Amino acid sequence: MKGQVVDKHGRRLDKELDDLKKKLLHMASIAETMIDKTVSELVERDEKIADPVPEYEEELNRLQIDIDEEAIMLLATQQPVAGDLRFIITASKINSELERIGDLTINITENVHTLLEEPPLKPLIDIPRMADLARQMVRDSLDSLVKEDVLLAQSVISADDQVDGLKDQVVRELVTYMIGDPRAIERALALILIARHVERIADHATNIAQDVIYLIQGRDVRHPRIARDKE
Amino acid sequence: MKGQVVDKHGRRLDKELDDLKKKLLHMASIAETMIDKTVSELVERDEKIADPVPEYEEELNRLQIDIDEEAIMLLATQQPVAGDLRFIITASKINSELERIGDLTINITENVHTLLEEPPLKPLIDIPRMADLARQMVRDSLDSLVKEDVLLAQSVISADDQVDGLKDQVVRELVTYMIGDPRAIERALALILIARHVERIADHATNIAQDVIYLIQGRDVRHPRIARDKE
Repeated sequence: MKGQVVDKHGRRLDKELDDLKKKLLHMASIAETMIDKTVSELVERDEKIADPVPEYEEELNRLQIDIDEEAIMLLATQQPVAGDLRFIITASKINSELERIGDLTINITENVHTLLEEPPLKPLIDIPRMADLARQMVRDSLDSLVKEDVLLAQSVISADDQVDGLKDQVVRELVTYMIGDPRAIERALALILIARHVERIADHATNIAQDVIYLIQGRDVRHPRIARDKE
Repeated sequence: MKGQVVDKHGRRLDKELDDLKKKLLHMASIAETMIDKTVSELVERDEKIADPVPEYEEELNRLQIDIDEEAIMLLATQQPVAGDLRFIITASKINSELERIGDLTINITENVHTLLEEPPLKPLIDIPRMADLARQMVRDSLDSLVKEDVLLAQSVISADDQVDGLKDQVVRELVTYMIGDPRAIERALALILIARHVERIADHATNIAQDVIYLIQGRDVRHPRIARDKE
């Protein structure tokens, strides 16, 4: 990926790849805003906060199609090689991950609507913390792509364990609420599902970080044991 | 995709593309077996049934890396155009979907283990039915790729609504169990999570079917309204 990038005809693909990067960063910032708004709506109990989320989702969908078309067009017309080729394939994968993060925020708003119809079950601490972590993971995973920073990408993968730990804690606590009071069950279940959606957002950021490391190092970290066996 | 397929040097890529198809079919049949074994373990309450599932998952991971490497190699060395190019990109996407289906069956086994430690909560009818539908959707989505059958792919997308409907029914019923008996809460929650994992497997099969339609028709059905706007 480093240095001057030329295709087989000697033309530089820098501009096209920069454009792909910019579109991915734009998608990521939209996804971050969606996470922020859905969880703020939950915490502040204000139904208006997440109103623009469906519009953001359409914007993500549009960008996803744009990026896929652009990737196919580049592959078809520029015949990129080596690092450029891998970059374009990676861009197409990251593209799908970001679009799915958007879908998950839509799932969160559905559960939030259920919750706002009832009085609050408990003060929310761990779910907003999970959401902050997940949002930072999305940002860092994209930054690691732009800066080609393997360490930053690895920090995203480590943060995923924290999110998983918090999710387990949230589920345990909410099950106790359910056992203590049957009237708490539906609200506790909605909160458990929100925690799982946030956990999955973090999983998608982790997938992006793994794709970035694979791109930079040219080896597969998605399944480390198998990659090692093959070396 | 139809007819004789040649690259820009006039060589036929049929063999390479057939090989990719065969590997994807192999992944799909492993994924189907994994769905079958995890749900049979739950229904028959026999812990041994899903023992081989983690090994299958490693096999899926290996195949995923193989297919990705093969796709990149083909793109780099054969410079495929038009339909072939789109087929290779689609193969790489379907590849990821199948690997994620494998991951979800692992999640199911974790919840099944929790359930097998306690007496059964209720006879299971809707979850096995959801799993049968999801398994058939995985098979049909891959068949629609091999046969280039748009109608079959569309039937997969329709079946997804059935799975979603069953999932909602399962959740409603289990919430009633939770409200009726606090001792049922943990088991009911484990069953709700299993139903959601199966629902997500069906979602991945739906993604595959949408990719297949996109491949065959050269238009994007993932976000129909946007695709229409662009036409």
